[in-house]
Amino acid sequence: MMMRTIDWHADGVRMIDQRLLPNRFETPVYHDYRDVARAITDMVVRGAPAIGAAAAFGLALAGRQSQANDRAQLMRDLEEAAAVLRQARPTAVNLSWALDRLMRVAIRADLETADDVRAALMAEAQQLADEDVALNRRMGFNGAALVEDGDTILHHCNTGALAAVDWGTALGVVFAAHEQGKRVHVLVDETRPRLQGARLTAWELKQRGISFDLIADNAAGHFMRTGQVRLCLVGADRIAANGDVANKIGTYTLGVVARENGVPFYSVAPTSTVDLSLAHGDLIPIEERNPNEVLNLQFEGERVAPEGITARNPAFDVTPHRYVTAIVTENGIVRPPFLKNLARAVNGSLTAESR
Amino acid sequence: MMMRTIDWHADGVRMIDQRLLPNRFETPVYHDYRDVARAITDMVVRGAPAIGAAAAFGLALAGRQSQANDRAQLMRDLEEAAAVLRQARPTAVNLSWALDRLMRVAIRADLETADDVRAALMAEAQQLADEDVALNRRMGFNGAALVEDGDTILHHCNTGALAAVDWGTALGVVFAAHEQGKRVHVLVDETRPRLQGARLTAWELKQRGISFDLIADNAAGHFMRTGQVRLCLVGADRIAANGDVANKIGTYTLGVVARENGVPFYSVAPTSTVDLSLAHGDLIPIEERNPNEVLNLQFEGERVAPEGITARNPAFDVTPHRYVTAIVTENGIVRPPFLKNLARAVNGSLTAESR
Repeated sequence: MMMRTIDWHADGVRMIDQRLLPNRFETPVYHDYRDVARAITDMVVRGAPAIGAAAAFGLALAGRQSQANDRAQLMRDLEEAAAVLRQARPTAVNLSWALDRLMRVAIRADLETADDVRAALMAEAQQLADEDVALNRRMGFNGAALVEDGDTILHHCNTGALAAVDWGTALGVVFAAHEQGKRVHVLVDETRPRLQGARLTAWELKQRGISFDLIADNAAGHFMRTGQVRLCLVGADRIAANGDVANKIGTYTLGVVARENGVPFYSVAPTSTVDLSLAHGDLIPIEERNPNEVLNLQFEGERVAPEGITARNPAFDVTPHRYVTAIVTENGIVRPPFLKNLARAVNGSLTAESR
Repeated sequence: MMMRTIDWHADGVRMIDQRLLPNRFETPVYHDYRDVARAITDMVVRGAPAIGAAAAFGLALAGRQSQANDRAQLMRDLEEAAAVLRQARPTAVNLSWALDRLMRVAIRADLETADDVRAALMAEAQQLADEDVALNRRMGFNGAALVEDGDTILHHCNTGALAAVDWGTALGVVFAAHEQGKRVHVLVDETRPRLQGARLTAWELKQRGISFDLIADNAAGHFMRTGQVRLCLVGADRIAANGDVANKIGTYTLGVVARENGVPFYSVAPTSTVDLSLAHGDLIPIEERNPNEVLNLQFEGERVAPEGITARNPAFDVTPHRYVTAIVTENGIVRPPFLKNLARAVNGSLTAESR
């Protein structure tokens, strides 16, 4: 990447506008936290780790916007802003995780003035973003141990540098394997309806010179059944305590077909994506987005679907843990039983044998 | 339908140009069998039964085009034309089935002159088309026994009137259930890459006033896992002797996920789609179409995928028979063991208990 997906720049939150890729590269800067929330909702920025960093910078921005002279008033303003940011999208838990982390800073006893809090929030957002890059890289190289020279990898949605502050999650594993000199080929699900695979993953792989073919999502099963896929790599938007994975719509289907064909199926996500408060995946809220994402498709300049019809548009699905071979985190590769080993990974106490 | 998908009109083969739907309704007439073959390749007409009828009319047209004065020369011209038509698309067996049926007429001993053969071929093509309509209707009402009032039905690709001469196969079951007064709701897979669901199935259901929602193919699994689908209905392009079903890409994945969730999975196809000469589905040739069908997608007026990348585009996949609950034919509902019962259905001797 030429720059981070999200960072602090010119007194505002700067994002790569992912809705315009691969056709245009634009980097708007937002100076109001409400615009940051809207940018998350509208998918200017998307991808669980990137959403987390965006929320963190958004809350730090809200602190600067606040006119408060005392900590109590600033706290009220921050709580209002956090509520707005928290509602921007429901499924990715990184958003709440990042806001909670910054709110813990806001109440730190060692900070004296409102300006001390403002400065600490900005420092924390920056540190969260820097850590994201570092832990994504570590996670990528953890996962690269699962990739062999010559592998064909099926990949869903976008989980690359654009889905994080930099580097990425599942696609970060591909980048790490590529850096290790392993020759890999990626089958890139185009990922309807938002087409993050066709738009973003194809763009990132092309930039890095990694071999790939774009495929319709419908073709993934055929390639697995006919022995043309060695492993599946996907990201995650939220992982329940038992290892159930909420991720981009279509992931569940891939998981089922992968297991049916003996193809290892890995979810790659930082521990900030793990929500130990939820016992299983059906407790994860699934966002339904605007039906126009399905309806407004064009081909050769013309609308595809008839006018005046309706659509359903769930943006995520839940892959029960029995379809998940392992979950790759920055703290190591987590294998079943997930209930025990995920908690260890989150606490940083994953032992060698559970990896 | 206002008219048949394919018929003989104004001394030529007339087709609804399905590439233009739902935006424009045009009905080109072809006066050269080579143009009919090209129309099949280019998907002006598609759907296994419709392709069969198109090939039949195409061969009858070739007979009229031939300058031959004697039967031997006409036969050579017909064989040349049949070879061209047979290569138009590889997967649907109805194409070969229709051509073989007309070629058997061409060699009938009771025909004396070349013109007798020409007339007999035209009559046979017309009869094949008329039979297609009648048997599709019968098949639809056979299948409607599987549909209950209030059912939500998942449907892939287009298998309606546009996929046949009229009425249709899997969607014909929906039409029959609707005519019986059963309230049904259809989840319509958009069916990338050619989007036959979004273009054609949505158009047909809207015309008939049947309740439906368009969905991205990726969402089908989510709706099945969350108990929102009562049964799946798909067509077939070729069915092997053991019941393996070659059908539009994405069908295999649906079959696997349906079985995983206990959702009945039915393939609806006339017996002309059954190829008893093939022991299993992996012997069925799978067409790979132009990668531009995947690459050239647009959204809001702009190309989605980066320029200069590659794609894979298998047009069909094979669903092994273990995922198929039953195959609905014009001769009844065929249940496992398919090897025995499909042969009986083709011969018209399906017994009540094997239904």
